[in-house]
Amino acid sequence: MSPSDSSSPSLLTSIRIVLVEPAGPLNVGSIARVMKNMGLSQLVLVNPQCDPLGPDARKMAVHARDLLESAQQVSSLPEALAGCYRAIATTARPRYRNVSAESPNQALPWLLTPQPSALIFGREDSGLKNQELELAQRIVTLPVDPSYESLNLAQAVGVCCYELRSQWLSMVQSKVKSAPVNSIWEQNTHATIPLSDLEGYFQHLESLLLKIGYLHPHTTESRMQKFRQIYKRSHLSSQELAMLRGILRQTEWAVGSKEDS
Amino acid sequence: MSPSDSSSPSLLTSIRIVLVEPAGPLNVGSIARVMKNMGLSQLVLVNPQCDPLGPDARKMAVHARDLLESAQQVSSLPEALAGCYRAIATTARPRYRNVSAESPNQALPWLLTPQPSALIFGREDSGLKNQELELAQRIVTLPVDPSYESLNLAQAVGVCCYELRSQWLSMVQSKVKSAPVNSIWEQNTHATIPLSDLEGYFQHLESLLLKIGYLHPHTTESRMQKFRQIYKRSHLSSQELAMLRGILRQTEWAVGSKEDS
Repeated sequence: MSPSDSSSPSLLTSIRIVLVEPAGPLNVGSIARVMKNMGLSQLVLVNPQCDPLGPDARKMAVHARDLLESAQQVSSLPEALAGCYRAIATTARPRYRNVSAESPNQALPWLLTPQPSALIFGREDSGLKNQELELAQRIVTLPVDPSYESLNLAQAVGVCCYELRSQWLSMVQSKVKSAPVNSIWEQNTHATIPLSDLEGYFQHLESLLLKIGYLHPHTTESRMQKFRQIYKRSHLSSQELAMLRGILRQTEWAVGSKEDS
Repeated sequence: MSPSDSSSPSLLTSIRIVLVEPAGPLNVGSIARVMKNMGLSQLVLVNPQCDPLGPDARKMAVHARDLLESAQQVSSLPEALAGCYRAIATTARPRYRNVSAESPNQALPWLLTPQPSALIFGREDSGLKNQELELAQRIVTLPVDPSYESLNLAQAVGVCCYELRSQWLSMVQSKVKSAPVNSIWEQNTHATIPLSDLEGYFQHLESLLLKIGYLHPHTTESRMQKFRQIYKRSHLSSQELAMLRGILRQTEWAVGSKEDS
């Protein structure tokens, strides 16, 4: 999950987040923060309608003020896209001309290339104009609920930056190793006990449960199969197995010592 | 992409977003908005440190003021989780005890069930305490960049709500086909016990282990935390939990009957 898994500079740093005429300084500051959280660093402001270096923006940026200070300010969208090979525009419209909007997870990985690329966001109140949408090769719509479709700009940027980072991490991980780390089995790598130790536990458990009268000969097999499932699923570590055996021994002692008394 | 693809009520509405002691009214309002954008509707506030119905929260909620008004306010996390079958806690820590935090796309789909489930977020400044993390079965960490790991609370909730909605839309779209079984959690779909039943088992186990002398007052907390991990990981069904409780009762009987004799 750490970008240090990759020795090459992150492809995320070649993506520009382009805001067209942003009017809310709190939004611009929040966007700088979430970009830095997700490993993006290039913010481009097209004709901003607020002060991106004022106190409101700085307050929301917190430790991402460097992104605000290094943000490029330009007067038109074509300028913001200068040198880019790929650009995606975001819109609330599900279709624009004959292009269907795609979901972020479909389209955004396409921006992860070493060449400069751009993700464009429109104005808080009115989004992007048609001629601005034309400048992008693909368009993306966030999968919002029809009951309330209007996302806050900073939230929209945050979700897209998260999606870019998630997709980039998958790329890095699949490059490093072939096996995807997507199940609990892979995560619990501490859990490496020999199967024979687990078998030893099951036999110990069975004999104790027979002794205390929980199991009876005719129920033993089916019950024990169920207990096996429980403990196999939890994928025990050797320390955990030792604790569980400790309980069995202590129970034997408690039952046995009463028998002796 | 539209929820109208599904005629059944959305599984998103059975998920509670639980905020523990939120202090920022702007955050609470933003969270209500992005929840509604993503089709979630249940907001639960544990001992809020701000006014969730004040002007700041209402301003940020915009057209999601109904979510603020219907938000439940409770005084403790167990109250917030009452009736829930599944709970995931969010944390900035990549590991908690021997449990690895998972990424949102790995873990969050597990909350998409018809039974009540919960996604828990901690305080803006200090997150969740250990005993709060203990109440969840799984933990999630957002895949942030090491250069700036601290996400704004509303952004963290926004990203998770987006991930839940994306995964839910994939489920709806692939409804006809069988769902992919890509982790142990998904395989154990039979496992639907209320969290309070699991807590009841842990308390029963603790009292028995004290009685038979396996636990001592000074070791109880750390040992019990380890046992909790084992049984949470194995994701018990109600039948399995009943069997485990049967062992406890039978052991009590075996120890007690010897005491009486």
